[in-house]
Amino acid sequence: MLDKVLNARSVAIIGASKNVTKRGFQAIKILQEEKYEGEIYPVNPREESILGLPCYKSVTDIDQEVDLALITTPARTIPPIIEECGKKNIAGAVIVAGGFRELGEEGTLLEDQMVEAAQRSGVRLIGPNTSGMINMKTNMNLVGIKNAPKGGIALICQSGNMALTLITEAMIRKHEGFTYYIGVGNEADIKFHEYLEFFRNDPETKSILMYVEGMSQGREFLQQAYNTTKIKPIVLLKSGRSISGKRSAGSHTGSLAGMSEVANAAYARAGIVVIENSDELFPVAQTLSSLPPIKNKRVAILADGGGHATIGADLLSDYGISLPELNEKTKAKLQEILPPAASVVNPVDVAGGTDSNPAIFADCADIILKDHNVGGLLIVGLFGGYGIRFTESLAIPEEDAAHRLGKMVQKKNKPILVHSLYSSYDSHPIELLRHYNIPVHDSLDVTCKCISSLCQYGDYLTSYQAKTNFVFNWHAKARKRGDSIIRQAKAEGRKVLLEHEAKMLLRIHGMSTSVDKVATTEDQALEMAKEIEGPVVLKIISPDILHKSDAGGVKVNLKSESQIRIAYNEILLNAKNYKPEADIRGVLVSSMANGGLEVIVGTKIDDQFGPVIMYGLGGIMVEIMKDVTFWVLPISPTSAKKMLQDTRSSVILDGVRGQKSYDKKSLKRLLLLCSELIESYPEIEEMDLNPVILHHEGLDIVDARIILKD
Amino acid sequence: MLDKVLNARSVAIIGASKNVTKRGFQAIKILQEEKYEGEIYPVNPREESILGLPCYKSVTDIDQEVDLALITTPARTIPPIIEECGKKNIAGAVIVAGGFRELGEEGTLLEDQMVEAAQRSGVRLIGPNTSGMINMKTNMNLVGIKNAPKGGIALICQSGNMALTLITEAMIRKHEGFTYYIGVGNEADIKFHEYLEFFRNDPETKSILMYVEGMSQGREFLQQAYNTTKIKPIVLLKSGRSISGKRSAGSHTGSLAGMSEVANAAYARAGIVVIENSDELFPVAQTLSSLPPIKNKRVAILADGGGHATIGADLLSDYGISLPELNEKTKAKLQEILPPAASVVNPVDVAGGTDSNPAIFADCADIILKDHNVGGLLIVGLFGGYGIRFTESLAIPEEDAAHRLGKMVQKKNKPILVHSLYSSYDSHPIELLRHYNIPVHDSLDVTCKCISSLCQYGDYLTSYQAKTNFVFNWHAKARKRGDSIIRQAKAEGRKVLLEHEAKMLLRIHGMSTSVDKVATTEDQALEMAKEIEGPVVLKIISPDILHKSDAGGVKVNLKSESQIRIAYNEILLNAKNYKPEADIRGVLVSSMANGGLEVIVGTKIDDQFGPVIMYGLGGIMVEIMKDVTFWVLPISPTSAKKMLQDTRSSVILDGVRGQKSYDKKSLKRLLLLCSELIESYPEIEEMDLNPVILHHEGLDIVDARIILKD
Repeated sequence: MLDKVLNARSVAIIGASKNVTKRGFQAIKILQEEKYEGEIYPVNPREESILGLPCYKSVTDIDQEVDLALITTPARTIPPIIEECGKKNIAGAVIVAGGFRELGEEGTLLEDQMVEAAQRSGVRLIGPNTSGMINMKTNMNLVGIKNAPKGGIALICQSGNMALTLITEAMIRKHEGFTYYIGVGNEADIKFHEYLEFFRNDPETKSILMYVEGMSQGREFLQQAYNTTKIKPIVLLKSGRSISGKRSAGSHTGSLAGMSEVANAAYARAGIVVIENSDELFPVAQTLSSLPPIKNKRVAILADGGGHATIGADLLSDYGISLPELNEKTKAKLQEILPPAASVVNPVDVAGGTDSNPAIFADCADIILKDHNVGGLLIVGLFGGYGIRFTESLAIPEEDAAHRLGKMVQKKNKPILVHSLYSSYDSHPIELLRHYNIPVHDSLDVTCKCISSLCQYGDYLTSYQAKTNFVFNWHAKARKRGDSIIRQAKAEGRKVLLEHEAKMLLRIHGMSTSVDKVATTEDQALEMAKEIEGPVVLKIISPDILHKSDAGGVKVNLKSESQIRIAYNEILLNAKNYKPEADIRGVLVSSMANGGLEVIVGTKIDDQFGPVIMYGLGGIMVEIMKDVTFWVLPISPTSAKKMLQDTRSSVILDGVRGQKSYDKKSLKRLLLLCSELIESYPEIEEMDLNPVILHHEGLDIVDARIILKD
Repeated sequence: MLDKVLNARSVAIIGASKNVTKRGFQAIKILQEEKYEGEIYPVNPREESILGLPCYKSVTDIDQEVDLALITTPARTIPPIIEECGKKNIAGAVIVAGGFRELGEEGTLLEDQMVEAAQRSGVRLIGPNTSGMINMKTNMNLVGIKNAPKGGIALICQSGNMALTLITEAMIRKHEGFTYYIGVGNEADIKFHEYLEFFRNDPETKSILMYVEGMSQGREFLQQAYNTTKIKPIVLLKSGRSISGKRSAGSHTGSLAGMSEVANAAYARAGIVVIENSDELFPVAQTLSSLPPIKNKRVAILADGGGHATIGADLLSDYGISLPELNEKTKAKLQEILPPAASVVNPVDVAGGTDSNPAIFADCADIILKDHNVGGLLIVGLFGGYGIRFTESLAIPEEDAAHRLGKMVQKKNKPILVHSLYSSYDSHPIELLRHYNIPVHDSLDVTCKCISSLCQYGDYLTSYQAKTNFVFNWHAKARKRGDSIIRQAKAEGRKVLLEHEAKMLLRIHGMSTSVDKVATTEDQALEMAKEIEGPVVLKIISPDILHKSDAGGVKVNLKSESQIRIAYNEILLNAKNYKPEADIRGVLVSSMANGGLEVIVGTKIDDQFGPVIMYGLGGIMVEIMKDVTFWVLPISPTSAKKMLQDTRSSVILDGVRGQKSYDKKSLKRLLLLCSELIESYPEIEEMDLNPVILHHEGLDIVDARIILKD
């Protein structure tokens, strides 16, 4: 649907100008200079012609078909212009002007007006507040950044400066460029996920590179991302994670930066390679667009001398990549061609063995990549610079090696990446490597990140995530046997389910909670307690008292009749003292949970990504160590398993210090039931199961809180 | 003392050669090409002259004074050559050859022989297994890396490749270079700390840049580093922190990579700026050598447009640097010169306000740096590239701004750093900034790290650490009242103090432990228990049973006579079953500690840095979360305080969830007492106080283990 917009065969420049300092002039000039393959129609009521092109009074005066309009006029003029574009059947418009949502209330109003006009007129909008867009295939450059290199990367960017940075970097690094650039701006009409869908279906686009400050429809984006990463990689940097960063992002695109823990979990869930370090953004996208992913997370390092090898090994270990032992045959073969001082364990150190003939690097690479333990190879050091550092003639065997390394990647379908401190010298051997799509960087950190991203993406592709058919769109499930509980609360005008209601809802869906009933008299409480084996707990039930303990509304470990009678009365007295006007429904009588491991499970609706679930060990692990994991709902059994593994404290579930392991099966079932519950009742805003006591067999949900949407 | 070696006015090349591929030829050639200011004496018994210089049969044949020898012959030939150097009164020798400790046992033997020869002859050794050294002041280039730039950085490097990398980077980045380069190699004779001492006293050296894989005399290094960082900064990258990295380092320099948690704590203690990312190593050293440190950890960002500002704010937040609010006067002044769309909070966004006149950047910088909330300024975006990106004429106001920014740093003594995506274009405005020692980088990550390193160093300089007079050298203290306990254990041939002995030693030095005595009969145990208020604990005491619980040798919470009698007999029976031949000394009768917060305190002797102390909350926090802090002993009261703050779980000490705070004062006293104890008894190898129960008032050392050195 975006095809006519992003592959427009004709562009009207609305706000065309003869003034060389105006965007309306520069836009036409750049299209001409870059040799745009389509038609250009300047629109300005006061001009006859601009830059040799006839000028039109309005778009409706243009006698040919127009696909796209670039509008360079100020914010307030735009809604009527869009109506006119609609009349001309123009498919899309790029809105350059700022002065919309990023400026606050008044701007938001104008933006809403503009979007309404667009929807009425059937015109799709890119922006506003955008540097524009580029289609590199047709040279439709609506930005003004010249000489952007062509290649296989689609760039979606929420900052014009970052686009300029990435395109400039591509120019300097050479040998990989772009299919499209889209400045999403305020994302007023066309959203991130729509661009994503378009690029998934674009055959020239090999990878998608994104810079995001915040997105308005995170769940739709995840769905499209999830479908896309099965086919081609997405690399994303999300900024605005700190308070200062959020403030900066807010003043810039007016976007909601959101909670980064949730965002990172969500992106990971959809198979996106998330980058934290802006230096790595372009190199990783370049790597993923041209090299095969590594599916076994195992990499070998080939070096001449220490230092680089040691640092590289450290970095790869940080990324969770193993440097496997080479097998005996591999080692023997390497020993044959390398001097005795060489180290043939991984990292392999040729120890000067290539000094007189750097082509030996290719021999070593061939031997190493034949080893089935090795999924990819990282060459570190000086390769491509032997001719510079030592004798000029060494460039010849280096070139030979470069040809062989390049063909090796294609033949073996295992990637090779090269770190060379001579990378920026662009020697011919280095140019050759790049010709064969082998990235060469002078930063060891960046090279290690690149090879690790191949492992990360490969791991995702082989993992369950890419194999299941996950649907991020939200559909209420049929099983809604607890509807009456929610209806009752709503009828009473309540936003919160009472504890016994929440637990009832959970039990209806098969969760194990403490058995409990609400007593309205002392005698009734005693009767109920007698039916329960072991000590009981009494808790106040009132829609007006959410924090029961603070109100003195909880008494635990009650064993005798007298204890229960005293507790019952004390609780009522405390509640009345705490909030005299409280609507008291009674006292909940529950069995007392046995000791075990305290965990917390919760769900909430994230502003960007919709329903998410949280899990962690209770107490200080959640409060202080923030050792929790988030996941986007719904979850699969494999996701539930992965959630348990994701916390650093997960080993406790397996039993530490010789303790018995806890009942992970029940815990996983609980997570899945929560997922189902949230699918079944879209009315639920937030659910808090805290604490859940996990036993060696079974678990108890001791307290449950459910908050409904407004 | 190293003066004559590192500032040698004459060099003998031992192993000089006419063969152009030999180091013995290249070494002379490079000294001539680089115009070494001193004398060169080739030594080769078979040549008359080399490269126009008369050749000597041996060093003793040279009729002039010789300060330094560069020895390029193989490993096995070196010990006798050194003896000869001694005869000629040569102060030092650079040993290039590998084949020593890094190759294992045989090489270690040869290295020891060589060092003995050196010590006998009074010759100091650089290396072996080194790429050499360079004195940039006299052009004494004994490495062969040409065109290394001169400047204020002393480079100490344990990898020739890393030296080449850093020197090449300096060449490419321009405007800062080196005073010296030292390849320490195997550190067989001259150690890291001796070089450090030399560079501290070298007036031309402004900062010291180190790449370390492992060091043999860590404590001496810390002492020298501690003294040095008060005067000039040290920037250090320590590699070999992963298992693969350690393996690589070991095969490379034969060095002990050690435990990185301890190393990092130790380096931080000495005020060293530790770098994890090799891309940042040179830029940080360059920054610290030329800009004033920031003492209030507060930085402002100045940008044109979003993106870069948002990412920069995120990164600075990650480094713990705050972006303070600007004061009202500052904001008002900025508003005067910037367009209405500009954001005058921090980050400041000029929002196109500099498009027609980039000199406004200098006006903004001047206003911002006058704000006393701001310690330094980070300019991000395109500065220096307006003339490239937009109109060429904009380079003129950019140059004007560059001059003013440069002088501003000097006048206000507050640093400015610039990120520009046009950095590598080396435009004249960018050259000007560099002329004024303002670093310009195209990596936002690197620029942020650089300004954060100014904060880190400034913070250290203003903190207590630089103000106390810490002595890292180890001297036993006088108070050794517990000597008899240690003597007794040693007399019995034991390496371990029995629990009651360890506790006794602690009590002698004023620590509060559980009160306990050793009973040898059931009746005695009962008597002892009666003297103790509340329940008691019985534990087996045997030098042959270290893990008492595993042996069934611990019984807790004993209240009645019968419980104690049964426990006593069970413990003895269990111990006999566990280890029939065990030497059983009796049963320890202790008071039962009240509940509280479990913490662990331990000391050990680190291979590199000597005695260190560890502290952390007990249980899973230590075992699973690794939430512990290390510190090099001895510690001061302020260090003890800092240790408690250093763990993520420290908030628990202050009382979470409305709990009372724990007795931090007693805990700090315990840490200081441990420090004193380790100073008093150099015989102690390891001490383990686990658990220590911390109360709201006071603490109990429940179990103590002390292991003596062999």
